Amino acid sequence: MNKNHRLIQLAHGNGGRLMRELIQDVFASHLSSGLDTFADAVLLPAGTGGEMVVTCDGFTVQPIVFPGGDIGSLAVHGVVNDLAVVGADPHVLTTSFILEEGLAREVLEQVVGSLAGAARACGARVVAGDTKVVARGEGGGIYIGVTGLGYRQPQHAPKLADLTPGDVILVSGPVGDHGTAVLMARESFGLKSDLRSDCASVLPFTQAIRTLSGVRFMRDPTRGGLATVCLELARHSGLGLHLQETDIPVRPQVRGMCDLLGYDPLYLACEGRVVAVMAAQQATEALERWRQLPQGHLAACIGQVTQLAGKVVLETPYGGERLLEELEEDPLPRIC
Amino acid sequence: MNKNHRLIQLAHGNGGRLMRELIQDVFASHLSSGLDTFADAVLLPAGTGGEMVVTCDGFTVQPIVFPGGDIGSLAVHGVVNDLAVVGADPHVLTTSFILEEGLAREVLEQVVGSLAGAARACGARVVAGDTKVVARGEGGGIYIGVTGLGYRQPQHAPKLADLTPGDVILVSGPVGDHGTAVLMARESFGLKSDLRSDCASVLPFTQAIRTLSGVRFMRDPTRGGLATVCLELARHSGLGLHLQETDIPVRPQVRGMCDLLGYDPLYLACEGRVVAVMAAQQATEALERWRQLPQGHLAACIGQVTQLAGKVVLETPYGGERLLEELEEDPLPRIC
Repeated sequence: MNKNHRLIQLAHGNGGRLMRELIQDVFASHLSSGLDTFADAVLLPAGTGGEMVVTCDGFTVQPIVFPGGDIGSLAVHGVVNDLAVVGADPHVLTTSFILEEGLAREVLEQVVGSLAGAARACGARVVAGDTKVVARGEGGGIYIGVTGLGYRQPQHAPKLADLTPGDVILVSGPVGDHGTAVLMARESFGLKSDLRSDCASVLPFTQAIRTLSGVRFMRDPTRGGLATVCLELARHSGLGLHLQETDIPVRPQVRGMCDLLGYDPLYLACEGRVVAVMAAQQATEALERWRQLPQGHLAACIGQVTQLAGKVVLETPYGGERLLEELEEDPLPRIC
Repeated sequence: MNKNHRLIQLAHGNGGRLMRELIQDVFASHLSSGLDTFADAVLLPAGTGGEMVVTCDGFTVQPIVFPGGDIGSLAVHGVVNDLAVVGADPHVLTTSFILEEGLAREVLEQVVGSLAGAARACGARVVAGDTKVVARGEGGGIYIGVTGLGYRQPQHAPKLADLTPGDVILVSGPVGDHGTAVLMARESFGLKSDLRSDCASVLPFTQAIRTLSGVRFMRDPTRGGLATVCLELARHSGLGLHLQETDIPVRPQVRGMCDLLGYDPLYLACEGRVVAVMAAQQATEALERWRQLPQGHLAACIGQVTQLAGKVVLETPYGGERLLEELEEDPLPRIC
């Protein structure tokens, strides 16, 4: 291979020979089971039945590769998790890559391989894709737009209309791991940590509880973290949320880094956790199911729904209370 | 409104207040008919029936606004056209925006409005979306990843397996308008022209002929232009194509600019044309249908399928022949 071809060139996006070879050698070879590189649009493969749901997300994480994952696995998990939290199983994905001129081809291969592996592990097929190349200084190495289609049995949809004061709030594991791991991976901070991103599919968690009739709401707390999920739910539902700070699982390394750098772990992204709001009488059952799962032993009940319209109250370890507020400043751009 | 808010800031992508307001004020207000901004994934609206097809494309065109369109209308038409050429009608779209810090909010509003208008005109609903903001120097103003889902009556699918020597090649209008218009719009060339991009939905063209039994293949010649479509078809089918250069419609302004700048119009992008390959006996009927359409009066028969495996031969006005070859160098990055 020509040495120049180890870096992505503008010609890799021009529709000609280099682009054809790149798509064949990198994309089709990793994603061969589902990718027709000649077609403009492809027939949707037969699915499992049920109602079809759709979601879409863009990924710009920096660095592209971080402890615990890379932009490829993150992109799959991000979209699969958005399908999972509405009670669906993923079916097919589409991927739109925007590459920056000068990107090392090895990095692209790693990311596409990682994306393909994550998709397979989640039972999703990549059926359509596109690649563009932008000039140096007009991109960020790799950006990926992913759309996901999934199937859901209607009875597995969370019943948000049933949300009521007294419902309890569960989280499937410690919060803030992804945000902190990405932060640490950015050299500019000059800090070291063994913390890894929680980047993973949450399907095992949503599948474990979606059959319970008392599930009101599920969400993966990504951008803006746990606090933002709670604030959005309060705003949307017109009810309030009361959180017990001591019950919210946060790893000591995450807490330490946050103290050092002035971040609040409740606002830092997770990429492999679920927040669920449940009827109180089914909470114990749900927690037991979650704690049996590989990443679920720290699952916890962290609070409950209240009548305090639109308010999210955090009860501190000392018994005080503070109102959580919407993010204003950006703590961490390009976190996902 | 705070003056700073007239420019996109990193905080517009952080999941917090500014992002919520941006999504509400810009995206939801333009796309309100189909957009649930609270849901992680939405139920696919009921469609017209038939088999479902899916496609995906990324858009990085520069400049963002060009004569005849902008990245918003281009993104819709690009994806709708990929559905159209397989014989489908568009149903829903998803849009993933990557904004660059410092983008003028007015430009974003124009683009989202244009995208929404184009989608409505094509009968497609935007049902899911995402917005990320990257730092200055890591983007290109606006990039958009779009996925489209459409429905097709199986009998409307082009029958590529029937492709046979003697079939004829039609094009729905002059080629190279988009590529040339975008080229002209880049100030660095210092040239002026009244040429506009052909950016448009090709649905009227594909709908007009897809009921004919002799349609073998349709494609919108975007990146790499007409020549690349012909080369891909030849490579894929194992047959050849013979084109008559004098029959290929090219506007005088396009030809003039290409002569001046050293481009070949056959390799320049169209964004509102269709190339169709047809059974010879239905070609006249197809052309008549096309020429009755608003943008179809220059539709032409430009060549035929041959047995010369994998070769695309261009017969020049002087009776000579030359082999068309795959693009190597990139003539125009960020053309779509």
